[in-house]
Amino acid sequence: MNIKPLGDRVVIKKVEAEETTKSGIVLPGSAKEQPQMAEVVAVGPGGVIEGKEITMEVKPGDKVIFSKYAGTEVKYDGVEYTILRQNDILAIVQ
Amino acid sequence: MNIKPLGDRVVIKKVEAEETTKSGIVLPGSAKEQPQMAEVVAVGPGGVIEGKEITMEVKPGDKVIFSKYAGTEVKYDGVEYTILRQNDILAIVQ
Amino acid sequence: MNIKPLGDRVVIKKVEAEETTKSGIVLPGSAKEQPQMAEVVAVGPGGVIEGKEITMEVKPGDKVIFSKYAGTEVKYDGVEYTILRQNDILAIVQ
Amino acid sequence: MNIKPLGDRVVIKKVEAEETTKSGIVLPGSAKEQPQMAEVVAVGPGGVIEGKEITMEVKPGDKVIFSKYAGTEVKYDGVEYTILRQNDILAIVQ
Amino acid sequence: MNIKPLGDRVVIKKVEAEETTKSGIVLPGSAKEQPQMAEVVAVGPGGVIEGKEITMEVKPGDKVIFSKYAGTEVKYDGVEYTILRQNDILAIVQ
Amino acid sequence: MNIKPLGDRVVIKKVEAEETTKSGIVLPGSAKEQPQMAEVVAVGPGGVIEGKEITMEVKPGDKVIFSKYAGTEVKYDGVEYTILRQNDILAIVQ
Amino acid sequence: MNIKPLGDRVVIKKVEAEETTKSGIVLPGSAKEQPQMAEVVAVGPGGVIEGKEITMEVKPGDKVIFSKYAGTEVKYDGVEYTILRQNDILAIVQ
Repeated sequence: MNIKPLGDRVVIKKVEAEETTKSGIVLPGSAKEQPQMAEVVAVGPGGVIEGKEITMEVKPGDKVIFSKYAGTEVKYDGVEYTILRQNDILAIVQ
Repeated sequence: MNIKPLGDRVVIKKVEAEETTKSGIVLPGSAKEQPQMAEVVAVGPGGVIEGKEITMEVKPGDKVIFSKYAGTEVKYDGVEYTILRQNDILAIVQ
Repeated sequence: MNIKPLGDRVVIKKVEAEETTKSGIVLPGSAKEQPQMAEVVAVGPGGVIEGKEITMEVKPGDKVIFSKYAGTEVKYDGVEYTILRQNDILAIVQ
Repeated sequence: MNIKPLGDRVVIKKVEAEETTKSGIVLPGSAKEQPQMAEVVAVGPGGVIEGKEITMEVKPGDKVIFSKYAGTEVKYDGVEYTILRQNDILAIVQ
Repeated sequence: MNIKPLGDRVVIKKVEAEETTKSGIVLPGSAKEQPQMAEVVAVGPGGVIEGKEITMEVKPGDKVIFSKYAGTEVKYDGVEYTILRQNDILAIVQ
Repeated sequence: MNIKPLGDRVVIKKVEAEETTKSGIVLPGSAKEQPQMAEVVAVGPGGVIEGKEITMEVKPGDKVIFSKYAGTEVKYDGVEYTILRQNDILAIVQ
Repeated sequence: MNIKPLGDRVVIKKVEAEETTKSGIVLPGSAKEQPQMAEVVAVGPGGVIEGKEITMEVKPGDKVIFSKYAGTEVKYDGVEYTILRQNDILAIVQ
């Protein structure tokens, strides 16, 4: 992947929630909850950001839970990504 | 449990308030007050967060009172958790 | 009491204002002013909170005046308490 | 007086504006402007407040001009006081 | 003058704008623009204010341009003054 | 180019999104999404900005993704540029 | 010019945009865009402002692009100036 985030930013790609309900009905996009689980795609270098030392704790491939509505959505090569600060990532799911 | 919070974040699971009133009537969910008591499920490593040293004071298993509406609710394996900063935990109940 | 506040937080219990007017009429709850006087019930350890050293100046048993609407009200064992930061306590009444 | 303010707080008692107009008509309370002049009644110890060193510059008995609407009004022993931070006191009138 | 401002505060007295238009018509108060030019009347001692070292750059007698609506207006001995922080003074007019 | 940004500011020129849809219809300006991809045109010197050391990470010619609506649009010699802080640049596209 | 800005403030005088459209029609003031280009007229001394070291990067005579709506407009000797912080100047045009 050739997006290189700056500073403490992280590029994530949302993991789609199950698209089929228990009864087997396929839900159209708008009827599903906003997914909050994502996979890390690219990670900025960290360092001193706005006068504060930031160490990057996530790495590409990590599955993460992130703060709903955080970050900026960008479309690149037809794929939707979200670019957010590491601070908007709440937890790593192992 | 396999959610690993980042920084000074804490994963809690709300403790349901008594579901039966004194007269013995079972209250449906919406008629009960938002519970503010929870059990700590996972605790981030703390350390220097946004340039400030944070020591984690809570540990898994602690019963805590937390700031109403604080944090982000996430559903994981069908269970509802709240991920919040330690600073939104007001007190430990012993 | 078994609520242990975190950081610079303080648990207080409001002191009810006089419930009888001079003419001897008992006022119902809603006709009385919001009491701003309270007794300290439990005090956090202080220390470095959000990067700032905080020394606790109040102790259990102190009668205090606190900032109206500050803090979070919690009900515990049927008693109403308020948990607030020491900084929302304005003065000690001796 | 037995109210001991915490930190950089100051207890003041408003000085009533002249209650009689030049023509000799006594004005009811609501027709008078909000007084901004007060006498200092009690002064907190100052020191390190929220990580900043504060030296108290006012002392009991000082006549001061304070920032309108600043602070919290409290009634104590039937007298109305205002508790505010020293920073909301604009000037000392000598 | 016997108002002694605290900290980095400055007492100024607005300089009335010309009260006569070019055509010689005297304008009533409300038809004139809010004056932004003032004369410095008293200056606080400066020093460490809220943890920051402030050096006072203005002195009594200086004509200054100040930030519209900044500060607090006070009436003292029948004269209207404005008390503001030095930081709300934009420039000295020489 | 003769615009020299100050501090940590960067001048960028938006890269127009494809102006033709797959079916070959040319879209008028208002029907296209706000482009978020740009080319860096000029970069400020960085250094200590508002008390914080900022190192410039982008250079003229870089293709960048920037925070939608960030910065100020200016028209210069008939060309539209956006001037924003480096911090509003999310990532470099390589 | 005898306006001496304080701290990191800068006095600028807006450069009027072309007053004639390509077709030769003279535009009245209100039909023209708010100009964002200005000439620096006077520069404050910089130094430690609100606890942060500020070095002045602009000098009288510089043509600058500034942040729309930033600063305070003042009329002095019949001329309109804007007084703003250096930080609201985006770039120098050479």
